[in-house]
Amino acid sequence: MQLEQQHSVKPNSGGWLRVIGLGPGDPALLAPAAKAALNEAEDVIGYRTYIQLAGPFRDDQRVQDSDNRVELERARHAFQLAATGRRVVIVSSGDPGVFAMATAVMEALEQAKDPAWDSVDLQIIPGISAAQAAAARIGAPLGHDFCTLSLSDNLKPWSVIARRLQLAAEADLVIALYNPSSRARPHQFSEALALLREHRAPETPVILGRSIGRADEQVFVTTLAEVDPAQVDMRTVIIIGSSQTRIIQTATGRRWVYTPRWYPAGK
Amino acid sequence: MQLEQQHSVKPNSGGWLRVIGLGPGDPALLAPAAKAALNEAEDVIGYRTYIQLAGPFRDDQRVQDSDNRVELERARHAFQLAATGRRVVIVSSGDPGVFAMATAVMEALEQAKDPAWDSVDLQIIPGISAAQAAAARIGAPLGHDFCTLSLSDNLKPWSVIARRLQLAAEADLVIALYNPSSRARPHQFSEALALLREHRAPETPVILGRSIGRADEQVFVTTLAEVDPAQVDMRTVIIIGSSQTRIIQTATGRRWVYTPRWYPAGK
Repeated sequence: MQLEQQHSVKPNSGGWLRVIGLGPGDPALLAPAAKAALNEAEDVIGYRTYIQLAGPFRDDQRVQDSDNRVELERARHAFQLAATGRRVVIVSSGDPGVFAMATAVMEALEQAKDPAWDSVDLQIIPGISAAQAAAARIGAPLGHDFCTLSLSDNLKPWSVIARRLQLAAEADLVIALYNPSSRARPHQFSEALALLREHRAPETPVILGRSIGRADEQVFVTTLAEVDPAQVDMRTVIIIGSSQTRIIQTATGRRWVYTPRWYPAGK
Repeated sequence: MQLEQQHSVKPNSGGWLRVIGLGPGDPALLAPAAKAALNEAEDVIGYRTYIQLAGPFRDDQRVQDSDNRVELERARHAFQLAATGRRVVIVSSGDPGVFAMATAVMEALEQAKDPAWDSVDLQIIPGISAAQAAAARIGAPLGHDFCTLSLSDNLKPWSVIARRLQLAAEADLVIALYNPSSRARPHQFSEALALLREHRAPETPVILGRSIGRADEQVFVTTLAEVDPAQVDMRTVIIIGSSQTRIIQTATGRRWVYTPRWYPAGK
């Protein structure tokens, strides 16, 4: 029955849905495929801040910005539009596939009650993540085995986060941390640090990247002993070195950080 | 003494070194910054296969391709050229910061005996990694906590790799595997699978991405029970789902894979 009803909807004639990542925000790091999608879009949907980074837009383009907490509604709205033949872009920062909108789009598709959504021409266009952009600015801290963890306990219990941090520390992986802190839960990053300090040396390099690729970009190099949670907010990505991660101090005063390709036996 | 000698080298007048990632190989995913560096380069250095992907080059550009195993020599050669005022690009595939040339460049810089290398204008330009590109083709398997591990035991002992796999499995991270197999060591991936099968359910989704972004691109979705090591070679990136990773089968027959943003309590 529902199928018949849905067939009365205007069929998908040339509509599509593209989920794009802006990368860190610098247009020089935006994939041409993402730029082309933005240019061809009739509807552009996303969190306000990212929409502003993605613009400006033409008068014939409909821009629908929203709060950051309504990912699933945004995804559903995008499918609805694309299923009626509109060309729709959902804008994420970084890589849409890393703690961003591609997952919400998949959730919307799986829960879809409208079979027309199944035949929407859907493409996910990857982007350069915040961790990659911060890493490139400072050297190659992600040059060896690493993990990428979110400290947000909005959608997973803190016990899971703590256990993952503990095991990642035991595995001596470089650790990139997203969503380190929020107004609602200011202690997450401090708790993570306390955990990591049980496993890693005080001199372990720590990189704080904030607003990488934007005008107010900041990259700090510090250590596990000295890192100050007050330097960290939701726009900060953090990279915690492994036991092997090294800081290079050049004669010109520049500091670089990298994790070697080799790993000593017996560690 | 060495300092004085080095100062007799032609000073760095406009030379630079850019370490770029080609991304997965599709020009639509190549960062404009990387493209600009390739265009402005006087010398282009890299592994033969990547040089071919990065080209064509003009007659006035010197192209120096080499075998894949001489990363450190390649990096040193690039510094030597840049220190004498040449504009040099080192080409990597994917992201140069992820199991690629940026690390070798850092190693060369740290071990530099020539102080002129310290003042080389060095920039690392990030790219979209193979794991990200494969993930985007199939949905959002990296949408939640994940790790990126290399199975190559050229530069680290297998015991370290096995321990990391074990801990990553216990942490229920999605696992992206690079360098899964080689002619010298064909059993690495089989051993990794045996380890992972002790921790994850047989129906855990497994994605095999081969030559993503190129003409002969292939993406397979299989399961931990069914994945066949014969499908895997050094050009394959593998993504092993967590306990939460899901396969969507649409009415049109397309399959998508994603890892939800939420995580159940009590897991």
